[in-house]
Amino acid sequence: MGQKLLGNMPQGLVFVLSAPAGTGKTTLVRMLIRDFDCIAESVSCTTRPIRPGEISGVDYHFLTQPEFQQKIQLGDFLEHAQVFDYEYGTSRTFVEQQQKAGKHVFLIIDTQGAMQLRKKNFPAVYVFLSPPSLDELKMRLDKRKTESQEVIEKRLSWAEKELEMVRYYDYHLINDELDDAYAILRSIVIAEEHKVRNL
Amino acid sequence: MGQKLLGNMPQGLVFVLSAPAGTGKTTLVRMLIRDFDCIAESVSCTTRPIRPGEISGVDYHFLTQPEFQQKIQLGDFLEHAQVFDYEYGTSRTFVEQQQKAGKHVFLIIDTQGAMQLRKKNFPAVYVFLSPPSLDELKMRLDKRKTESQEVIEKRLSWAEKELEMVRYYDYHLINDELDDAYAILRSIVIAEEHKVRNL
Repeated sequence: MGQKLLGNMPQGLVFVLSAPAGTGKTTLVRMLIRDFDCIAESVSCTTRPIRPGEISGVDYHFLTQPEFQQKIQLGDFLEHAQVFDYEYGTSRTFVEQQQKAGKHVFLIIDTQGAMQLRKKNFPAVYVFLSPPSLDELKMRLDKRKTESQEVIEKRLSWAEKELEMVRYYDYHLINDELDDAYAILRSIVIAEEHKVRNL
Repeated sequence: MGQKLLGNMPQGLVFVLSAPAGTGKTTLVRMLIRDFDCIAESVSCTTRPIRPGEISGVDYHFLTQPEFQQKIQLGDFLEHAQVFDYEYGTSRTFVEQQQKAGKHVFLIIDTQGAMQLRKKNFPAVYVFLSPPSLDELKMRLDKRKTESQEVIEKRLSWAEKELEMVRYYDYHLINDELDDAYAILRSIVIAEEHKVRNL
């Protein structure tokens, strides 16, 4: 299949991938990039200082606060958000360039950023990746109810919050086994390439 | 992946597959059934007489004209159509039984039947399969225009008719190489299993 992707498409698609930290989202996207030439990962802009070992333009586009503000004013961010002390954003120019070059662009962004895109009907395929614990938790809460009330409530509230967001996504997959999750993500990309889009 | 399908679903999905004759639709569905226990093919009802080698309940449910009419009156057909002298229909009971048993049911039906389902918003995944010639033709008509005017018009009108229907489907795939088409169809099934359905 490898190079067959994008056969009949005028330009690449955008995939938005959100997942709680440590779920394996970056690993999965890197696996796709390894297998398919036509997949690219969006490089976010940030005002966070560069860390040892990071490469500007690869890990992030490192911007100063005024540079970041200027991009906001120019309307170049598809989405941007402040996380703790720093700003993070996805450059529209970068994404569009990749799409026009025939690449599907993966935006690995949090639910906050994803919902900004969803709200303005930004055309993308929205994928939510859960850690297996959410699923286990859900089953446990649904079926067993043997935990202490306090623990149940704490977990339920977290799960509810997460699940509330899942409903705004197109796909939901659980990273239980990495190879299975990868096969599913790969299937989603291939299926989306063959979707009828009545433009 | 094999047995992982249907992991989190309360019941199976319905896939509607339409394609011009000789496109390989039955072959593709049989390949899916071979690989996945959770895939079933809907057996249509028909008033056409049984042919040598056919098995009732496997190839078709062979019904008399009054039996067929009664099923229409009972509202048991999800869709039904007359093709030449005979009636063909999909039994709702059969499909629902399979879904409840945890199977995805493939309905291999023509565009006429598929559009009956689409018009009443029957929840299914609509897949259109094209022979490679349609694609070749399309590219030729789009780009080259070296054919005689008469031939171009004839082919265009056929292609247009087909493509007009494609837009009512969710997915469009071209059976160029059987293995590629199979990989795509398989991806569509896996992707659809992980779709967020806000019921």
